[in-house]
Amino acid sequence: MIEKWIGVVGGVGPFAGIDLLGKIAAQTVAQQDQDHLTVLNWSQPSEIVDRTEYLLGEVDENPAGALAVQVQQLAKAGAGVVGIPCNTAHAPRIFNKMRAELAAANCDVKLLHMIEEVGRFLQTTLPQVTQVGVLSTTGTYRAGVYVDVLEPLGFTAVLPPLPLQTEKIHPAIYDPVYGIKACGVATKQAQENLREGVATLKAAGAEAIILGCTELPLAFNKPTIAGLPLIDPTLILARALIREANPAKLKPL
Amino acid sequence: MIEKWIGVVGGVGPFAGIDLLGKIAAQTVAQQDQDHLTVLNWSQPSEIVDRTEYLLGEVDENPAGALAVQVQQLAKAGAGVVGIPCNTAHAPRIFNKMRAELAAANCDVKLLHMIEEVGRFLQTTLPQVTQVGVLSTTGTYRAGVYVDVLEPLGFTAVLPPLPLQTEKIHPAIYDPVYGIKACGVATKQAQENLREGVATLKAAGAEAIILGCTELPLAFNKPTIAGLPLIDPTLILARALIREANPAKLKPL
Repeated sequence: MIEKWIGVVGGVGPFAGIDLLGKIAAQTVAQQDQDHLTVLNWSQPSEIVDRTEYLLGEVDENPAGALAVQVQQLAKAGAGVVGIPCNTAHAPRIFNKMRAELAAANCDVKLLHMIEEVGRFLQTTLPQVTQVGVLSTTGTYRAGVYVDVLEPLGFTAVLPPLPLQTEKIHPAIYDPVYGIKACGVATKQAQENLREGVATLKAAGAEAIILGCTELPLAFNKPTIAGLPLIDPTLILARALIREANPAKLKPL
Repeated sequence: MIEKWIGVVGGVGPFAGIDLLGKIAAQTVAQQDQDHLTVLNWSQPSEIVDRTEYLLGEVDENPAGALAVQVQQLAKAGAGVVGIPCNTAHAPRIFNKMRAELAAANCDVKLLHMIEEVGRFLQTTLPQVTQVGVLSTTGTYRAGVYVDVLEPLGFTAVLPPLPLQTEKIHPAIYDPVYGIKACGVATKQAQENLREGVATLKAAGAEAIILGCTELPLAFNKPTIAGLPLIDPTLILARALIREANPAKLKPL
């Protein structure tokens, strides 16, 4: 088989893109530089308006247009399979529009859907779980991105109550002073907010926690929290990209 | 001014490329995704033969050709300034050949020279230092990459004795079982070898230590070791790329 080149729309956000690249490299069977897959990363965040602001009606421009342009740049450069490490960009109002623009431009690159990959991963690896907690931006929360994928698969999505979501969880990602996007690391305040979110989801019955924003894995360095498995969509996307590029190079779980 | 796009030849090796991307993002003045610079990462390591093996005569193909092709791909995609996060690739036999190939192809992208950037950094920030220790691959060691840049600037390069270089330092990077390139992290054995290297360089008079292989910063997470400042060429290259792309976005040191 011919190995496909992986393309990453890396600017959503920049640290999430870099986290994805690191996970692709770490999940690849390789003993030397030359064994690694070809990975092109197109990080041009200035062109992509904030996905949550669009979903909440704070900006009119749909980021789908700029995302589609960057996917096409990757395809033009040679990428055969593309991933977008941003949960909120997978909201149907954005993702479906982007897919339509790519189809209109005759761009037939294989574009993975990170949230669907997460759903399939849960089905195969955690079949005993029924209630799944989701930490995310308020854009992903309001758009029901995970609810729409999880419920048809038989899972119940457990979300934080709205005030906790808007006052603690979203700011852990977006606050200009202590948020992960501004700081590139998880500050103490961000970690404290997220711990409160996990405790609330656990009390509401969650048996696993999806880190449903690609900045969130930067705040957790263990596979479980409070006894619950942590589900990292970035890691799942990294593995799915390798599977599509060359399954023989995917490390066993 | 028009902001330049940064291009990174990211596959030499893949983890070093990702480390550089992380340092570019971390050194950029940004409060939100959209403030970050455009960064294109072309990681196609399968095409680039090992730089050290070439310098030691173990393979005939000069990696300069493949490096020049990838720099051109980045330029074609829009990059205005390019960095190569591999010290050994800056050996004159490789770097000068690559420059000649780019000139022959009329590729006039600005290509930074990481080692010259390190020399300028030492001159301006550590003017009191005269003896500089260098940890590197055996390719960089034998090619005198740092010696050639440091000595004209008035520094004395302090290198490990040859047996320590070939039996401990080079394997910390390249050993297929415990080397950083194979593992993506600094294993205990790699760290132990490198500690021995630092102790030897310090005993020989080194007043600072250059981590002269872009995998080595993965083994050190502090700014000093054994009381000596650690010089990280990847960090210096990251800052130089931001300076060339848009100096207003470079964080103060």
